[in-house]
Amino acid sequence: MEKKRNLYLSNTPVEEARQIFMTEIKKTMGPRYEIIPVTASLHRITKDAVYAKYNSPNYNAAAMDGVAVIADETRGASEVHPLCLPADRYENINTGNVMPPSCNAVIMAEDIVEQPNGQIQITAPAVPWQNVRPIGENIVCGEMVLPSHHTIRSIDIGMLLEAGITEIEVIKKPVIAILPTGSEIVEPGTACKPGEIIDSNSRMFENMVETDGGIPCRRHILKDDPALIKRAILDAADTHDAVLINAGTSKGTKDFTVDVLRELGTVLIHGVAVKPGKPVILAMVRNKPVIGLPGYSVSAYIGFINFVTPLLEYLGSRASAQLEKVTAVVSRRLMSGLKYEEYVRVKVGLVDDRIVATPLARGAGVAMSLVRSDGFLIIPQYCEGVEAGEEVTVYLYRPLSELKNTAVIIGSHDLILDVMNDMMATHYQNLYLSSTHVGSMGGLMSLKRGEAHIAPTHLLDETTGTYNIPTLKSMFREPMVLIKGVDRIQGLMVPKGNPLHIKKLEDIVGKRYINRQRGAGTRVLLDYKLKNLGISPDQIDGYEREANTHMAVAVAVQSGNADVGMGVLSAANAMDLDFIEVGVEEYDFAIPKRYMELPVIRAFLEILKSDAFHRKLEEMGGYGYSKSGTVIDIGEMA
Amino acid sequence: MEKKRNLYLSNTPVEEARQIFMTEIKKTMGPRYEIIPVTASLHRITKDAVYAKYNSPNYNAAAMDGVAVIADETRGASEVHPLCLPADRYENINTGNVMPPSCNAVIMAEDIVEQPNGQIQITAPAVPWQNVRPIGENIVCGEMVLPSHHTIRSIDIGMLLEAGITEIEVIKKPVIAILPTGSEIVEPGTACKPGEIIDSNSRMFENMVETDGGIPCRRHILKDDPALIKRAILDAADTHDAVLINAGTSKGTKDFTVDVLRELGTVLIHGVAVKPGKPVILAMVRNKPVIGLPGYSVSAYIGFINFVTPLLEYLGSRASAQLEKVTAVVSRRLMSGLKYEEYVRVKVGLVDDRIVATPLARGAGVAMSLVRSDGFLIIPQYCEGVEAGEEVTVYLYRPLSELKNTAVIIGSHDLILDVMNDMMATHYQNLYLSSTHVGSMGGLMSLKRGEAHIAPTHLLDETTGTYNIPTLKSMFREPMVLIKGVDRIQGLMVPKGNPLHIKKLEDIVGKRYINRQRGAGTRVLLDYKLKNLGISPDQIDGYEREANTHMAVAVAVQSGNADVGMGVLSAANAMDLDFIEVGVEEYDFAIPKRYMELPVIRAFLEILKSDAFHRKLEEMGGYGYSKSGTVIDIGEMA
Repeated sequence: MEKKRNLYLSNTPVEEARQIFMTEIKKTMGPRYEIIPVTASLHRITKDAVYAKYNSPNYNAAAMDGVAVIADETRGASEVHPLCLPADRYENINTGNVMPPSCNAVIMAEDIVEQPNGQIQITAPAVPWQNVRPIGENIVCGEMVLPSHHTIRSIDIGMLLEAGITEIEVIKKPVIAILPTGSEIVEPGTACKPGEIIDSNSRMFENMVETDGGIPCRRHILKDDPALIKRAILDAADTHDAVLINAGTSKGTKDFTVDVLRELGTVLIHGVAVKPGKPVILAMVRNKPVIGLPGYSVSAYIGFINFVTPLLEYLGSRASAQLEKVTAVVSRRLMSGLKYEEYVRVKVGLVDDRIVATPLARGAGVAMSLVRSDGFLIIPQYCEGVEAGEEVTVYLYRPLSELKNTAVIIGSHDLILDVMNDMMATHYQNLYLSSTHVGSMGGLMSLKRGEAHIAPTHLLDETTGTYNIPTLKSMFREPMVLIKGVDRIQGLMVPKGNPLHIKKLEDIVGKRYINRQRGAGTRVLLDYKLKNLGISPDQIDGYEREANTHMAVAVAVQSGNADVGMGVLSAANAMDLDFIEVGVEEYDFAIPKRYMELPVIRAFLEILKSDAFHRKLEEMGGYGYSKSGTVIDIGEMA
Repeated sequence: MEKKRNLYLSNTPVEEARQIFMTEIKKTMGPRYEIIPVTASLHRITKDAVYAKYNSPNYNAAAMDGVAVIADETRGASEVHPLCLPADRYENINTGNVMPPSCNAVIMAEDIVEQPNGQIQITAPAVPWQNVRPIGENIVCGEMVLPSHHTIRSIDIGMLLEAGITEIEVIKKPVIAILPTGSEIVEPGTACKPGEIIDSNSRMFENMVETDGGIPCRRHILKDDPALIKRAILDAADTHDAVLINAGTSKGTKDFTVDVLRELGTVLIHGVAVKPGKPVILAMVRNKPVIGLPGYSVSAYIGFINFVTPLLEYLGSRASAQLEKVTAVVSRRLMSGLKYEEYVRVKVGLVDDRIVATPLARGAGVAMSLVRSDGFLIIPQYCEGVEAGEEVTVYLYRPLSELKNTAVIIGSHDLILDVMNDMMATHYQNLYLSSTHVGSMGGLMSLKRGEAHIAPTHLLDETTGTYNIPTLKSMFREPMVLIKGVDRIQGLMVPKGNPLHIKKLEDIVGKRYINRQRGAGTRVLLDYKLKNLGISPDQIDGYEREANTHMAVAVAVQSGNADVGMGVLSAANAMDLDFIEVGVEEYDFAIPKRYMELPVIRAFLEILKSDAFHRKLEEMGGYGYSKSGTVIDIGEMA
């Protein structure tokens, strides 16, 4: 089934769209309540204040192991004139035992000397009510145990039971129907044919609903058929507190969601001024909120936090979960359209007491950018972007305390960074690596601006033919060190079997090449080799086509999007490609000397030298590690 | 069954005891692993790094709705010279669709003008690969999705599924057996006879184990019978990762736990230098850790966080959950024994940028002190205590951000404070009240020292016969206001039916009286009335016996622990006591003028004036509210 495209969505600012939506919802819906056992109430929220039903303790109890006495009868006892109590004037008692009705004090076992014939000797008088827990010491019947709207903790559960309360009225968890739609959507575990997409969003939503205190009800995947979708929405709206439909919310020829919703109820919003995530639908069907979110995972995620989370908080009477907000300097220029506010995922690090935010990939479908991010910043609508070094507000996913123990790595990409990050997680509690890939030169620039601790670099100095050291010497005034990383084999990656018979670098002329981004050491190496060969970049088809990582180049070759690209052997191995060696280069780590004593840098060095790391390098192939972890002092420049 | 007391426990410092215990555990146990579906992995922790199984996307996909073209064929198109593409040189395509193999760019629908005969007109050339999501844009097969020891979030679940991963190896949750013991322990919901204690601890433990990432297995309550306890421990050790037994850990004549553990295995520690919570047992039985915790709820809680939480973190490979740590000034002198480190529960507030900690009840059985606390401070071993105004480290249960919106109330106690606290929670999101009861005079002193925002006070000036204003005028130099609270009826509380025929204040002579603590307005009132009557405190039996709240006095009378005490009508009503009116007094709120503009103080004022509050006062009885919320400016003193 196809339909005519409806080209334009509205462009309502997020805050305004949320207001319109929540106002409509509040007209007919609110939190609901249920009575549950106290023993099952962890993390639930009280409806009303809860009052003690019984006194706790409900009897006068001994607070110590010892003997119960009548305080009056112990008067006058002293070290000098000890007093003996006959067997019928005291009673042995353990902590928690009922006080004999006639007694009003307990003398601790340690303060008693047992005598023959059952007498006891004491050397101090008892003060009335000493070592006695009086009735109601903990709580008195009728006193408030918990206030309204209180999130119940383990200790509260214990206390409620002590106060005689076994059932409690709490806010009911809102139940959210999740409807995945799309003829191209298949169940996880399917080996996808081209064009098929795994239904990952509905699983992400399920867990987000749960995290936000709701109950998710995921339905089976619906084909792009308006009649099916219509029936499913009506059914879901009748039996749930809200409906979340994904996707079909845009303006393609198979995006039926908005038409169906217009037919069934009222569409309040179609299109919000946010990037990624513009094609959002906010509607009411049979007095129930229906939210349509776009299919790209990052768009879906942002739509959820902007519109579903506030709904769950309202229906669940939960205080809105605030992400920690910090001021950071942005390490790269960020341009943004005036039409939207833009959510930019960032890596965040703390370098010399400055919080630095490094932007990650901005594509709406790059879920990895969310997985890898430490937080996000928002570029407001009507703002053209931010310059490198400008201050921005960042919302953090990780606690600031964790960021304090994180080494910020910005620079050239290699697969070993992932391996080192993983080894840090395994072997060093509370120390972390955070790496962003901007190429060797970009990394050194970040280092210079004080935005990173470590810059992985493999820059060949064309004059001397040596790696890294000349560049460091010329770029930095402050004392630097170079930690030797790995020797790695660079070469041309070509499909298995090398169908185009590429034998040497000059063979790439006339082939579809895929290049690395400007500033990447691999690109510098290419340029250097081309220059030596007298080949101009104009002669290379695809010289302008940029990929950011070795693996991105490898996959372009493997999938046939390109015929050849340059990269490291480990990437070719990982993608099962043929490899024509071009040269061995030195992939090292530039570090300002003053960071060398940081615990995380010391751990970094230990990993580089470890056997476990070297074994892993051998497994991956293409690396030499004879100098790994050697520290070269670059010294201070005049 | 009884046994001889074993008087002395060891007094091992907590940190040392924990080291000894964990070292022993690490000899034979470690984290275990299991493979689970990715869809059920929320909040679980990865064992190893996880690598993508498929490319995502696994085909070149349109990134926009529009038409797929061959970029080369669009060269030269411009606003001035639009280009027409015939129907067979482009293909309509929706976002996410597979790119036709011959095409390498997408032109957005918005940039196309449809022509008759199926042609389309474009006004700009397409750049190769524009609006195309290349294979692997999100992740490339073989790239790392998640590192080792990573706590899985909703977004990670989505990403794992996109990368073709449906099962994942994670740390197994440690399974903890919880054995409640004690012949006096009864199930929740039982109407307790004197001497019976509700089994609340095992339920608190269950939820603490769950919160710390373990699986709790609570067994039925065991009588104090060594044979039963022995069998249960052996059985639990064989089938669980650890055993938690509660209580019988002290030295009473029915405390069998330690003897049983000595018989079954090795007791590493019996007795730690902590208060509350000394009688802790740490043992190994059949290579499994067994922890015996004392019965008092606060002791049990502290024992859990000191010994069970670290065990769960180790077995569950979880980073230790750090409570937020702040430096605060303590508002009251705290004495502590040299023998122990002491955990003191505190209310915490932020007053003029100073964090103030006010100690709560210190009894080991006062679970309410934990429920009401915002955190705790630790007085180290070998330290005699801290003076008022001294700086201490406080571990926070509530986020500091919440404390910033909290009005700190220190002073006289009345039940209306609980009601106001509850109304604040219900009607004002993100504003809080925190009240501690130290009597009128203590509250004003706290105010003077800058440790509180509000001091509830009902101090009668004996010279003028007026309440509060003279005291404020004489005590404060800075501008103050008095917010009128309630007129409340004070009187004598006696058991229902007034068996001792108490008719007026002078009748308390010769009865067992229960008094309020020094500095309490109610005690000041008593002293004033006694002086007028010519009665000396010496004549009152129990004048020195102090209770801290109206309800504590009421319950002493109701339970027969005392014959009579003075307090407010609402407390007598709550406990169903008879009441002999002594006088009406003015219970008001003293506030430094500069706090009046704080949002939380404005909300406090609104509540005082609200109909809902007045209705609640009528329900409770004994309050007049004609002046509630009236602000009296006390002015600045010379």
